[in-house]
Amino acid sequence: MKYVQNMVCLGCGEQYPVEPINVCEMCFGPLEISYDYMSMKNKVTRESIQNGPPTIWRYIDFLPVNPDFIVDIGTGMTPLIKAKNLGKELGLTNLYIKNDGVNPTFSFKDRPVSITTSKAKEFGFEVLACVSTGNLMGSVAAHGARANMETYVFYPNTLEKAKILQTSSYAPTLIALEGTYDDANRFCTELSDNNNWAFVNINMRAFYAEGSKTLGYEIAEQLDWQAPDHCIIPAASGELVTKIWKGLQEFSEIGIISPPENTQLHLAQAEGCSPIVQAFNNGTSEVKPVKPNTIAKSLAIGTPASGSFAIESLNQSHGTATAASEASIIENIKLLARTEGIYTETAGGVVISVLQELVKQNKIQKDDLTVAFMTGNGLKTQEIFTDTIAEIKTSPKLKDFEKSLLEHKNKTLVST
Amino acid sequence: MKYVQNMVCLGCGEQYPVEPINVCEMCFGPLEISYDYMSMKNKVTRESIQNGPPTIWRYIDFLPVNPDFIVDIGTGMTPLIKAKNLGKELGLTNLYIKNDGVNPTFSFKDRPVSITTSKAKEFGFEVLACVSTGNLMGSVAAHGARANMETYVFYPNTLEKAKILQTSSYAPTLIALEGTYDDANRFCTELSDNNNWAFVNINMRAFYAEGSKTLGYEIAEQLDWQAPDHCIIPAASGELVTKIWKGLQEFSEIGIISPPENTQLHLAQAEGCSPIVQAFNNGTSEVKPVKPNTIAKSLAIGTPASGSFAIESLNQSHGTATAASEASIIENIKLLARTEGIYTETAGGVVISVLQELVKQNKIQKDDLTVAFMTGNGLKTQEIFTDTIAEIKTSPKLKDFEKSLLEHKNKTLVST
Repeated sequence: MKYVQNMVCLGCGEQYPVEPINVCEMCFGPLEISYDYMSMKNKVTRESIQNGPPTIWRYIDFLPVNPDFIVDIGTGMTPLIKAKNLGKELGLTNLYIKNDGVNPTFSFKDRPVSITTSKAKEFGFEVLACVSTGNLMGSVAAHGARANMETYVFYPNTLEKAKILQTSSYAPTLIALEGTYDDANRFCTELSDNNNWAFVNINMRAFYAEGSKTLGYEIAEQLDWQAPDHCIIPAASGELVTKIWKGLQEFSEIGIISPPENTQLHLAQAEGCSPIVQAFNNGTSEVKPVKPNTIAKSLAIGTPASGSFAIESLNQSHGTATAASEASIIENIKLLARTEGIYTETAGGVVISVLQELVKQNKIQKDDLTVAFMTGNGLKTQEIFTDTIAEIKTSPKLKDFEKSLLEHKNKTLVST
Repeated sequence: MKYVQNMVCLGCGEQYPVEPINVCEMCFGPLEISYDYMSMKNKVTRESIQNGPPTIWRYIDFLPVNPDFIVDIGTGMTPLIKAKNLGKELGLTNLYIKNDGVNPTFSFKDRPVSITTSKAKEFGFEVLACVSTGNLMGSVAAHGARANMETYVFYPNTLEKAKILQTSSYAPTLIALEGTYDDANRFCTELSDNNNWAFVNINMRAFYAEGSKTLGYEIAEQLDWQAPDHCIIPAASGELVTKIWKGLQEFSEIGIISPPENTQLHLAQAEGCSPIVQAFNNGTSEVKPVKPNTIAKSLAIGTPASGSFAIESLNQSHGTATAASEASIIENIKLLARTEGIYTETAGGVVISVLQELVKQNKIQKDDLTVAFMTGNGLKTQEIFTDTIAEIKTSPKLKDFEKSLLEHKNKTLVST
């Protein structure tokens, strides 16, 4: 908090004091927190970070949060795993998987929500709320529980049951809305105007967005203080791409890493909802709304709030944007699981699909340092697996087992 | 590895070289790894640990693993959360929750399996196998995938579907056996004799068991290098209790913490499978087999291999053993979720039930430093929730929402 300067409009540059506002009064542009990087130099160092806790709170100097109000559920410092087996299958020698599905509520959303809930406490809000594509609602409900706040979660009525069941355990008020996420989002924006609630991704969005920067910091630290050559990042609102980029820029700005001049950001969406990919590939930063129809429900935002900023980040980093075919998503969840033992949700399947595509197109070279971001947990989207599990059913007797195993192997041979 | 001395029989004290054996040839007692604590003193320190990675591998000096063979999926250093809200409900000021359900395969089993898989690679095994009550199979399949080993997982055919689905993604050979875990275990012990497989909890059990020690180290480190007054620990085989105790003893032995003289271990089982609790409360260390019938499937071992050793640890620490009523398990999963935002599986519900019981019985005092261990993840046992989710279903229109919210509130008022 001590290095926070103010809030700045990303559209016109107008400055505001730090308050729960998210839109510029002049031009309606989104606001962003700005920091005094000059003062941070030499005070915020690799060592000062390493002396912090093994959570996102080791990056407190880069966050708009007063330490007295921290709501800590143990978010962050998730594994970055060198993926030798998957790398071998794809022809890459330097591939890493950031496994962010093992956060406390099992998705990367704990990063923005930990920041926002802390800030909401500081501002004195009594109600926490969100509109969610699935992962956000669990995180908001858990943080609300821990922070002793009344909590409302809004979501489209088509989401995965596992996510709703998990969320319901934290005992928020659950509101399932007819229609798409975008319909729900419009409604909640209206609600937010009329209620003095901390709506994490509406009026608190500027603080919320800062949480995702920590993914940029973490991979740089885990790669021994360097930015990778490639980041493959899933996109719903598009915010994550811009904030990983901001994280790398900030580390470079105060001299913690070299400038990320060779880093390319690659945005990943599913074919059934790829408005940012379409705009990027049409050479425009104007994102046209689409009606989502994808099994990657956590990415199903047809009107992405940060789409044009994401495209700006892609352009700055000479990056790309790719849509994964719907058919490839499940196969690639399985590919990652069977090669690296990492069980990810549909958004992760999208990222692995796009990774494969980029390798095919020679956009990633053999020895490039590459990080693919898994943002959610496979246990949350198991309903996509509709085929029978290939288990051998038998009695605990040697003869039965050997016979069943043989039958199973013959069947497998025939089917492959 | 450099501090490992040999393997010692827990029954008669006979010593063996470090090999994939788990039973004493003299007395059929189980074997345990022994270390040269004298040499570790002053060389293994708080600082040397803190300089390690944020995983169980920071404790490598206490583990029987050659660093060249480590199979790392990012296990360990899970959050230890101060539970102010739950503490308040129970009248405790110093309660902590160890949230081990956020390990890479979503349970504490990644600790023993990371150790065993590493050791299996070192021994040159090509096949990894296990017999599981649910959490183990996911962990073994994931580690087997990452280690490029052929993998077989055996389990009773009554387990939760979420666990089987997760495990199947890592593409092991899945074998569902008729009968209980104990039937499956007997069968696998026979199989283990006839095959040159690394059966993680049979012939590799001595190495496997060492992994659970890391939970003891971690809580001591996270509590700023001290042992707690109380540990509430779930029990299936009983191994976890003995190994958390061993971890605390070892830290004390080499001077990293003060002797855990005030630490009491409290063992938690579910009423439907509580053979260790029954033996302990009958004043004997001889555990009589039971036929499990509990919703806490991950604890459903009727013939616990380490039951008598667990009771020995309870006696040494002046601890207790308590069975949670089946009816209390779901309520206590919800209690932890709505107070602390931690979503645990049935075994965790058992632990919270036992914690409550111990407070009621005045066995835990108001200001005692208390740690309750959550070993698995709520997403894995969602099938226990059979009642309808209390969600408000409405359209994204202000009038509809307000009406629905009012109806919901009235209904909630009536039903409470």
